[in-house]
Amino acid sequence: MLQAIKLAKNGKYSVKSNPIVGCIIVKNNQIIGRGYHQKAGTAHAEINALNQASAKTEGADVYISLEPCCHLGKTPACTDSLIRAKIKRVFFATKDPNSLVAGGGMRALNQAGIETKVGILKNKALRLNPNFSHRMKTGTPIITLKIAMSLDGKIALNNGDSQWISSKKSRDDSHKMRALSDTILTTSNTIIADNPRMNARVKTKKKITQPTKIVIDKTGRLNYTYQFFNTDTKIIIITQNKNYLNPPTDNIHILIVADFSLKNIFKSLECFEYNSIFIECGPRFATALIKEKICDQLVLYLSPKILGEDSMSIFKNKITKISDAPKLTIKKIKRIGQDIKLTLEL
Amino acid sequence: MLQAIKLAKNGKYSVKSNPIVGCIIVKNNQIIGRGYHQKAGTAHAEINALNQASAKTEGADVYISLEPCCHLGKTPACTDSLIRAKIKRVFFATKDPNSLVAGGGMRALNQAGIETKVGILKNKALRLNPNFSHRMKTGTPIITLKIAMSLDGKIALNNGDSQWISSKKSRDDSHKMRALSDTILTTSNTIIADNPRMNARVKTKKKITQPTKIVIDKTGRLNYTYQFFNTDTKIIIITQNKNYLNPPTDNIHILIVADFSLKNIFKSLECFEYNSIFIECGPRFATALIKEKICDQLVLYLSPKILGEDSMSIFKNKITKISDAPKLTIKKIKRIGQDIKLTLEL
Repeated sequence: MLQAIKLAKNGKYSVKSNPIVGCIIVKNNQIIGRGYHQKAGTAHAEINALNQASAKTEGADVYISLEPCCHLGKTPACTDSLIRAKIKRVFFATKDPNSLVAGGGMRALNQAGIETKVGILKNKALRLNPNFSHRMKTGTPIITLKIAMSLDGKIALNNGDSQWISSKKSRDDSHKMRALSDTILTTSNTIIADNPRMNARVKTKKKITQPTKIVIDKTGRLNYTYQFFNTDTKIIIITQNKNYLNPPTDNIHILIVADFSLKNIFKSLECFEYNSIFIECGPRFATALIKEKICDQLVLYLSPKILGEDSMSIFKNKITKISDAPKLTIKKIKRIGQDIKLTLEL
Repeated sequence: MLQAIKLAKNGKYSVKSNPIVGCIIVKNNQIIGRGYHQKAGTAHAEINALNQASAKTEGADVYISLEPCCHLGKTPACTDSLIRAKIKRVFFATKDPNSLVAGGGMRALNQAGIETKVGILKNKALRLNPNFSHRMKTGTPIITLKIAMSLDGKIALNNGDSQWISSKKSRDDSHKMRALSDTILTTSNTIIADNPRMNARVKTKKKITQPTKIVIDKTGRLNYTYQFFNTDTKIIIITQNKNYLNPPTDNIHILIVADFSLKNIFKSLECFEYNSIFIECGPRFATALIKEKICDQLVLYLSPKILGEDSMSIFKNKITKISDAPKLTIKKIKRIGQDIKLTLEL
C-alpha cells in the first residue's frame, strides 16, 4: 500500500482537479502491475495498472490508495474493470470522500464476490488529496491567499519595488503550491502593476498540468497583450463589462458576473468544480478577502528583512481597538531556507 | 553530573550576573552533599554542597557543572575548600569559559593530588550559561531587543493602544526572558508613553533577583513619580543632563555620558560586567539599534492578528532598494500558545 501511495504522488502536479491515486497489482508475491492517475479525463490508476499486468490478473490482489470508482464518468467505472480482470482481493486505503458514493465501489466489488479491505495506511492516504477531500465534504474549494512579506509586514517599497522580498527557495516553494492548485486567481491591478505570467514553474520530472488562471477585472481594464494571456492554459476573466474585448484564442473565457460582491464571485466559481483556488494579489484585494472571510487559509512567506515604515503594508484595514483586529490561527510553521512559511487559518 | 546540571538551574533567575552552577558530592555511592549557586556575592555551589556534606567529605567524589574557581573574588577560591575537604576526585562538565583562567582550577586541584576529569555532559553544561560564556569570550554582553508585533508588523494602533498584541503566554515568556537577563534597558519615551514597571514577574518557586533597570533619558525628561522608579532594584539612568534631578533613593544611579552615540552608550555599560542587556523600547529606538548593529539578537513575539496600515510600524527606517534592507537570520522558531517566538540574529 505504501508503494501505491508513493506511486500516486507522480500525478500530483498533473491530475488536477481529480484526486491523485496509485495502484499496485500483486500476484504470487510479485508486482505485476503499477499505475497512477495522471490527468483528469484519462485512465484511472487501476486501469493503468491492469493494462501493465495485461492477461495475468486472474486471482491477483490489488492495492489502491483510494476506493475505486463505480460510476461512469469521463472514463468507465474501475470496479467493472477489476471484476472483468478476475481480481481476487482489493485493498484500498480510504473510502471515496464524496459522501454520496463512499462505499459504493466496495459494495460493487463485494457483490461480484471480490474480497475487500479498507483502511490500510488510511491517514497517509488522506493526506494525499486535502483539496479534493475538502471539496467533496463541503462542496467548496480550498481558497488560499499567498503573500510574501518582510519581517515588518511589508510587501513592496513605496516605489513599487518588490523583487525580491522572499528568497529563491521560497519562490520555488510558491511555484510548487501553484502547481498543486487547480487554479491561480489574481486581479487586473496585479497584472497591470507587475505583468506576471502567473504559471507554475517547477523543476521536476513529474508532468505538470498548468492551473487554470482566473483574473478579476471588474471594469475591463486589461487587453490581451499582457503576459498573463500568452498561453494555451485555460483562462477565466471575471468581469461586469459586457463589452469586454473578444478573446483572441479559445482558451480564454469571459464570465460576466452581475453581483460583483466577493461572496458572489467566488460562489460563481463553484460550478467549475475546482478543488482549490490559489490567490496572489495586492494588499487591497487581500485585505478585502480577509475582511469578508473569503479565504480558508493564508500562506505567508516571511523573509527576515526590514523594509521600513514607508513601504507598502500587507493589509489595508483600519481598526480602532486591538480587540477588533482580525485574528488568525497558525496551523503550520516551516523553515524554507532563510525564510519562514506560515500557514494560517482564518 | 546530570543531577548537578539540574541543580544549577535552581539559580537561573537569581544568580545574575554570575553563571549558574550545581554541585553534587558522592561518597560510597551515596549523595552526601548538594549545592547550587544562588546569588552573586554569596557562597558558590561547591561551598554549599561541602557545607551540607559537613565532616564526611574525606575521600568523596565531587561533580560540578563548571570548573571550580581558583581565585579570590567576593568569596574564597573553591579549589582551596575542596582541597581542605580532602576530596578524592573532582569531575566537572566544562572549563571556565573565561580564557584567562580556564584550566586554572583543574591545575590547582591536580597540584594538590586531586584527580580531575573535564567534559562530562559538556554540551548540556555549556547551554546553562550562554550569556556568561558570551561575555567571557567577547568581553561584551549579549544585547537582545524584544518586540511583540502583529502579523502585519505593527506594534500599536495609531491611538497608542498596544494592550495586548501578544497573548498572555507570550507575555509570560517575555517575563521569563527579563528574569534571565542581568539588565532591562528602555528609554524615557517608553516610560512616558506606557509608565511600565519593567520588572520580571514570573510564577516560580525559584528565587528571582530582579534585573538592574537601565533607562536612556538624554535630556532629562523623567521624574521619579513613574512606576519604573518605585522599587529598590538597582536603576541606572543614562543622560547628558548634568542637572538631572537628584535620586530620592540609593538604588538609583545617574550615569552622565558625554558622547551620546549609541555605540558609546553601550560601551559605557561594559564596565558593569553585565552578561546580558534585554531591551524593550519603541520603534524609533529599535530602528536605530538595528541600523547601527548594536543588538546581537532580536526576539520577536509574532501574534497572528492584523492591525492594518494605519497602525504603528515596528521599524521606522526608509530604504529605496530592497537589496538595501537590513537582513536578519532566523535562529530559532518556537510556538508559544497561539503566537510564534522568533529569535533572529543581526
